[in-house]
Amino acid sequence: MNASTHMSPGLWRLPNGQASNNDLSYWVELAKLLESGNFDGIFIADTLGLYDLYKGPENIGPALQSGAQVPYSDPSVIISAMAYATQSIAFGVTASVTYENPFILARRYSTLDHVTRGRIGWNVVTSHLASAARNCGLKEEIPHDERYVRAEEFMDAVYKLWEGSWRDDALVRDAKRGVYIEPDRVRAINHEGKYFSVAGPNAVDPTPQRTPFLFQAGASSAGKLFATKHAEVMFLPGMSPENVRKIADDIRHQATLQGRDRDSIKLLAGMLVIVDETDEKAQQKYNDFLEASDLDGVATLLGGWTGVDLSALADDEDFHFTGPGAVQSLVKTWSATVPGSDNVKWTKRRVLQELAMAGAHPRVVGGPQTVADQLQRWIEVADIDGFNFSHAVSPGTFEDMVKYLWPELRRRGVIKEEYKVVGGAARENYLEDGLGPRLRRNHPGAAYTWRKPEEA
Amino acid sequence: MNASTHMSPGLWRLPNGQASNNDLSYWVELAKLLESGNFDGIFIADTLGLYDLYKGPENIGPALQSGAQVPYSDPSVIISAMAYATQSIAFGVTASVTYENPFILARRYSTLDHVTRGRIGWNVVTSHLASAARNCGLKEEIPHDERYVRAEEFMDAVYKLWEGSWRDDALVRDAKRGVYIEPDRVRAINHEGKYFSVAGPNAVDPTPQRTPFLFQAGASSAGKLFATKHAEVMFLPGMSPENVRKIADDIRHQATLQGRDRDSIKLLAGMLVIVDETDEKAQQKYNDFLEASDLDGVATLLGGWTGVDLSALADDEDFHFTGPGAVQSLVKTWSATVPGSDNVKWTKRRVLQELAMAGAHPRVVGGPQTVADQLQRWIEVADIDGFNFSHAVSPGTFEDMVKYLWPELRRRGVIKEEYKVVGGAARENYLEDGLGPRLRRNHPGAAYTWRKPEEA
Repeated sequence: MNASTHMSPGLWRLPNGQASNNDLSYWVELAKLLESGNFDGIFIADTLGLYDLYKGPENIGPALQSGAQVPYSDPSVIISAMAYATQSIAFGVTASVTYENPFILARRYSTLDHVTRGRIGWNVVTSHLASAARNCGLKEEIPHDERYVRAEEFMDAVYKLWEGSWRDDALVRDAKRGVYIEPDRVRAINHEGKYFSVAGPNAVDPTPQRTPFLFQAGASSAGKLFATKHAEVMFLPGMSPENVRKIADDIRHQATLQGRDRDSIKLLAGMLVIVDETDEKAQQKYNDFLEASDLDGVATLLGGWTGVDLSALADDEDFHFTGPGAVQSLVKTWSATVPGSDNVKWTKRRVLQELAMAGAHPRVVGGPQTVADQLQRWIEVADIDGFNFSHAVSPGTFEDMVKYLWPELRRRGVIKEEYKVVGGAARENYLEDGLGPRLRRNHPGAAYTWRKPEEA
Repeated sequence: MNASTHMSPGLWRLPNGQASNNDLSYWVELAKLLESGNFDGIFIADTLGLYDLYKGPENIGPALQSGAQVPYSDPSVIISAMAYATQSIAFGVTASVTYENPFILARRYSTLDHVTRGRIGWNVVTSHLASAARNCGLKEEIPHDERYVRAEEFMDAVYKLWEGSWRDDALVRDAKRGVYIEPDRVRAINHEGKYFSVAGPNAVDPTPQRTPFLFQAGASSAGKLFATKHAEVMFLPGMSPENVRKIADDIRHQATLQGRDRDSIKLLAGMLVIVDETDEKAQQKYNDFLEASDLDGVATLLGGWTGVDLSALADDEDFHFTGPGAVQSLVKTWSATVPGSDNVKWTKRRVLQELAMAGAHPRVVGGPQTVADQLQRWIEVADIDGFNFSHAVSPGTFEDMVKYLWPELRRRGVIKEEYKVVGGAARENYLEDGLGPRLRRNHPGAAYTWRKPEEA
């Protein structure tokens, strides 16, 4: 996030525990570092409200005191500085279809796609915080499943703008005839739906990708249906590779039911890597991080993610056996995968310590070989395409990865040595299928694409 | 504008007539050039719709064919690349209170203010194109004066977010106590008005300026009332210094009626400078530009500005004496100020040629001495604080100014040699009153400011 912290509240107290997200040099140096490590992209999460359920309801105190995802700044306006300093790394920027205007959002992403030369991704979210609804003009949240119905219409409207309102060869700059744009190659979309009314055409001519590369993380039934229809990258939940494998198989199956290729959605598991020269040093680093974690801040985030206010529950309750379903289900996944964890009592404190840096995502702690072994096991067992690496501290966590882990992965030949298309589009470098920067033909947005007559 | 052209349609046909606004290096080099010339700021105009009145109604053909302000890209996302390459120049970014969400807009400008270290300005517009309304979800435009009522409420809401929802000393980062933000120094705003409902607090902690530096260009009665209340810089209409003097006096008077200091609003006249080594070379350059101008494109822009569709009028009509009020009034101002213009027939073609590069703003064409004389006369007679320089071609027009005109202005000692506060905020460098980056105490937004107790 463009925020105080994303998932590791309290670590700002450590030396180098927090870089300033208000300082463009932080972002520029981060982008250069990650590009030097051939990361596919930088993904920036976002919210439009505070986590206010813990010790709540509507109590913003714990979030403020711990700095849990607050302040939370706009991710879209920091991209151009990073893009100017790099050439191949992509940028995934979160924006909400529940609170943004489709015409204005389409224009912003088109602009970003032009100035990054096709390196922009959009993480489509429907926003789950009631505080976001109250900030953005609603008295209460739109119900979950209706948000997805609305999101479907939003996608229709923006596909029409991006794909269907300008023909590929509209902008001709024909000096001889004095024609900048061929008028008959641009058209209104006149979208009139239940939720949105958008005349169009899009403000901006076709960009390298037209539709930005699409990220999504839907996990509910409605969310998965939405994601398997639209997403080109999905962030998967799940604490163990066996568990994630089931999810991955299900998603690929659902994608085929929607008429898409099995492999047209790249699947990434969330992952936190704490690595150092040796297992011991890495474990010590992890312990230091845990010591600095602010568990009230973690409980604040958990409140927003699960709807559970832990403060209302007893300190010595064992969540392995009792407690709210969302917490029990987390604990059951953990206890099934972490050796020895069956024998401990899953108290509130223990749960929060497990969540402290990676949230409800797995983590791997160790020296280069240990971490490489585990990541390779994840890739094989879970059958995923890669990871969405989070951080305990930034840029520290990523510096460690490039310094300690990358050489080992290179030795094993399991990490890419160069971008598929240097200077290419996000879509080209994620999908690596040689099919260019535009939506694949079986993607629902591609049905709207206005091509040149000879290519239609 | 972050667009094909702002006010000079057709000039893209010339060699170097158009830089690519999609190329970040264009913006970065432009920012560095203007900072090297100590320009106070770069102002980026914007619209959210096409000019579709000419040969209309709702005919987007002429705008497309001439490239008149289309494509029109988002100005907010290109700022960080420019800010990272500069340290003192400010950035004025246009955004509409009619179509943006107040919480989301406040967050975006707060983020921009942080990452530019206080160098962001907001040009507040209510948007006048019916096409923008249709793009953004309305069936028709909100009536003009109601737009300003709504705009007043919008300003209230964003002042509360920027000035009133975080105390200056809220973000403490107290590692010893583990307090990132003092909870009792941040509060909801719970704005509930006729048009907007915003819970708050602002997503972002107080930025260098809190409220971005405010630009406005209101010219109607409702617009002037709004501008003299809120603006810190105003762009003035008017073709002659004598005419602008009347407007400037009136604005300063109205500002005092609103309880503000006469000099708390900096007044800038629109101005196009075509300069070269000699008067002759400059005139030749101007003639070449005029030759390349696309008068249909100019008529397209005029349609949006005035509501007049020139295509419905006869080619040989003399607009000095007849025709729509808005056009006659332009012609009368010109004919009163341009020597000899009383003796020509103000046909449609003549009107469009006059508007071709600077729109309804004055222009000065000549060698360094001629231009310097005229600009000095403007400053003295109109009693203005500076100019909002437009361009015929960019960066060419600005390169010419820095190369040919700046040395002459330096010789005369009438141009600043350095920013008042190097690395300072927009507000400090425009107002030059030594009073820091925050709103001045007599500004209506300052009534909301939540200061430290000892400064309150």
